[in-house]
Amino acid sequence: MTHVMVEDILAQVRAALERDDYAAAAAALEPMRAADQADLFIELDDRQQTALLTRLDPEDSADILEEMEDEEAARLVTTLSHDAAVRIIDEMEPDEAVDLLGELEPHHQEHVLSRLEDEAELRPLLLHPEDTAGGLMTSEYLALGRRMTAGEALAALRTWRPDVEDIDEVYLIDRHGRLTGMVGMRRLLMADHATVLADLNDPEMVSAPAGTDQEEVARLMARYDLSTLPVVDSQGVLIGVITIDDVIDVIEEETTEDFQRFGGGEPLDRPYLESGVLTVVRKRIGWLLLLFLTETLTGSVLRHFEAEMASVVSLAFFIPLLIGTGGNAGSQTTSTIIRALAVEDLDRRGLWRPLIHEATVGVVLGGLMAAVAYGRALLWGTGPAVALTVSVAIFAIVVWANVLGSVLPILANRLKIDPTVVSGPAMSTLVDATGLFIYFTVAGLILAF
Amino acid sequence: MTHVMVEDILAQVRAALERDDYAAAAAALEPMRAADQADLFIELDDRQQTALLTRLDPEDSADILEEMEDEEAARLVTTLSHDAAVRIIDEMEPDEAVDLLGELEPHHQEHVLSRLEDEAELRPLLLHPEDTAGGLMTSEYLALGRRMTAGEALAALRTWRPDVEDIDEVYLIDRHGRLTGMVGMRRLLMADHATVLADLNDPEMVSAPAGTDQEEVARLMARYDLSTLPVVDSQGVLIGVITIDDVIDVIEEETTEDFQRFGGGEPLDRPYLESGVLTVVRKRIGWLLLLFLTETLTGSVLRHFEAEMASVVSLAFFIPLLIGTGGNAGSQTTSTIIRALAVEDLDRRGLWRPLIHEATVGVVLGGLMAAVAYGRALLWGTGPAVALTVSVAIFAIVVWANVLGSVLPILANRLKIDPTVVSGPAMSTLVDATGLFIYFTVAGLILAF
Repeated sequence: MTHVMVEDILAQVRAALERDDYAAAAAALEPMRAADQADLFIELDDRQQTALLTRLDPEDSADILEEMEDEEAARLVTTLSHDAAVRIIDEMEPDEAVDLLGELEPHHQEHVLSRLEDEAELRPLLLHPEDTAGGLMTSEYLALGRRMTAGEALAALRTWRPDVEDIDEVYLIDRHGRLTGMVGMRRLLMADHATVLADLNDPEMVSAPAGTDQEEVARLMARYDLSTLPVVDSQGVLIGVITIDDVIDVIEEETTEDFQRFGGGEPLDRPYLESGVLTVVRKRIGWLLLLFLTETLTGSVLRHFEAEMASVVSLAFFIPLLIGTGGNAGSQTTSTIIRALAVEDLDRRGLWRPLIHEATVGVVLGGLMAAVAYGRALLWGTGPAVALTVSVAIFAIVVWANVLGSVLPILANRLKIDPTVVSGPAMSTLVDATGLFIYFTVAGLILAF
Repeated sequence: MTHVMVEDILAQVRAALERDDYAAAAAALEPMRAADQADLFIELDDRQQTALLTRLDPEDSADILEEMEDEEAARLVTTLSHDAAVRIIDEMEPDEAVDLLGELEPHHQEHVLSRLEDEAELRPLLLHPEDTAGGLMTSEYLALGRRMTAGEALAALRTWRPDVEDIDEVYLIDRHGRLTGMVGMRRLLMADHATVLADLNDPEMVSAPAGTDQEEVARLMARYDLSTLPVVDSQGVLIGVITIDDVIDVIEEETTEDFQRFGGGEPLDRPYLESGVLTVVRKRIGWLLLLFLTETLTGSVLRHFEAEMASVVSLAFFIPLLIGTGGNAGSQTTSTIIRALAVEDLDRRGLWRPLIHEATVGVVLGGLMAAVAYGRALLWGTGPAVALTVSVAIFAIVVWANVLGSVLPILANRLKIDPTVVSGPAMSTLVDATGLFIYFTVAGLILAF
């Protein structure tokens, strides 16, 4: 569906709503895919959303709510009658329904939950924290006794006709409900009817305990190319299945969080333009202040070297240049190290290898930058002694920034701190004060104050 | 498989290799999953890798090569005899085999390709650029005539027993091979045997032309929760299918690239510790130099205000603090905007809304920082006039940084430049020179030089 078509349908829906023709508006929305419907939907005002939601087929309404942010969907549900809310939530996938229910006020949640058809199925799902395997899993999956034959299994499926989202695996359980294996639907289909399911078992099956962190779930599924991941309780009993589409959302969400931390702010919980000014300020002011206070160290260093600065004013001209370059070199290093920690499990290789690698890179980069800086300083008409000072200082600062930039994220990771906290802004700030100290110390040695 | 177990097996494999017992080494590797085997494998030296690869079951060797980086796998293949190489590559998934073949020297590629069983199938795949839908697709999928009945289809599948990776959909084609629809395996299994496939068609199917960029493929599959995506040529003929596991690799790769650009370096093509020092230097020196030369503007600004600095030396103490804070505020903004561009299609909402949003955030943040800066300056014993200068300057710089930080990534995006180029380091550098100019202009107004 192209951009233009979406705009077109939006206009049709709006026109229909203007004349309070909800049937026409619903008809215009009908042929679109859920993700596109949801995009359209959030452009409407509250009154229109509520009116439309109760007129659409409950299955379509459920799809739209599934595509929306949980908080937004929950807010919308509170504007509906209990009847309408129950009718729609009953059509949602269990994992999505639970995410939405989790955002409702406790009494409202209880009220809706107690009237849902799937109450018994949803209630246990609500117990798992949202960012764990248990919080991601759905309770709609296929589980069959491992002693069944393929023929019995196929006959059972044809009679039962289960509605199981996108799960194309049959999970095998023993008589205690414990997960013992897995058979792909295609394998089952092609098997000899007399074969016992246990003999069709895929030996490469991976499962995860309910408490597994969602980042670890994503890592497992990406590593082993899984499209579904069964979830078990502490007794090994199969309690749910995670589908890859939910994990892609997790990966996207975690990337966004990493990016925002990397940029020196706390992640926003909601889409950018829907986050109020004060929310954005609250997410940023903490880091901005902390970095500011750390950065005041630069003032202390400069005051310490006040006499030197006053005697050779041209030293001051190079301050932003030197500390800026140090910050950039450090930022280049941390960004590489942070991703290597996330994707390649770099920490397994120890602290020394990356440290030496980056120090070596720093020596080469620093040497090149020193040569350029020397030339640039002379071109500005700076005396050779100051030019030499700048050149030596930039070499030392780049090497220092590369070392800091490699060690700090790894140490953070070991201390179970998200390594993105040692990100661009934090890195620049750390390098600024120490870089100035290096600069004036070099100046002292060369210019012999 | 836990970390300890992997270490354990690695020790067993090493010990077996020491005594040249390749059978024992292969047996130790056998029960592991391919991803774990590959991890182990890269720890071995070249001679051991080659020896082991020819002794393992070709199917296992193929799995290991699939898990390795393409370049690394290709390098390894060149150490094998043609016979061994052909035997292993014939067991690889077509999309993975093609990626590997693409890395071989042309004459070597031709030599291997001409002896492969799947030659006819692989040759057309080689024509598609690696980073397009055509480059990601596999040629092993299920396509059936849309006029077949479900019963005929099931019977055909049971006789044919196709080996089709993780694809649980049957694609429907007309007599010209054009894609007309899709039926999920589960749906097919449960359908009445007399139903015609076309009547089981999933109306929500999405497909992509072969030239579609891999980022767009990832966006489509994430947006519509697809686990497979059929690929068509310009006539609409079905030519391949993309599976979600390959797309997760794409997402991971693109995230790493974005991170490294965001940190101010060009992305590395290979795992970090396997990238040589000179490669890393080459990826970083360009940006570091460019930023350095831009940063020299700060020197020009400072020389321009040399007299002011000499008359009020304490102004210099605040230079790193002010420009550092500006850089941090700008970096916070760009990181948010860049992700909103990638995930929420922010550009669709125009330039003004984010601009005004960020300017407002900047006014609040700048106001708070100005108050803190004023207090901090007085605490340092700075005179009230200079303290006021610092305070007003920091307010103006933060607002300015937020505006720049919101506008530049959006403009870059419109000019089809990757918005991450206006990342942390570039942002800090741009804010440094302009921030100094703001600072000394404010100083001129307040201190009336």
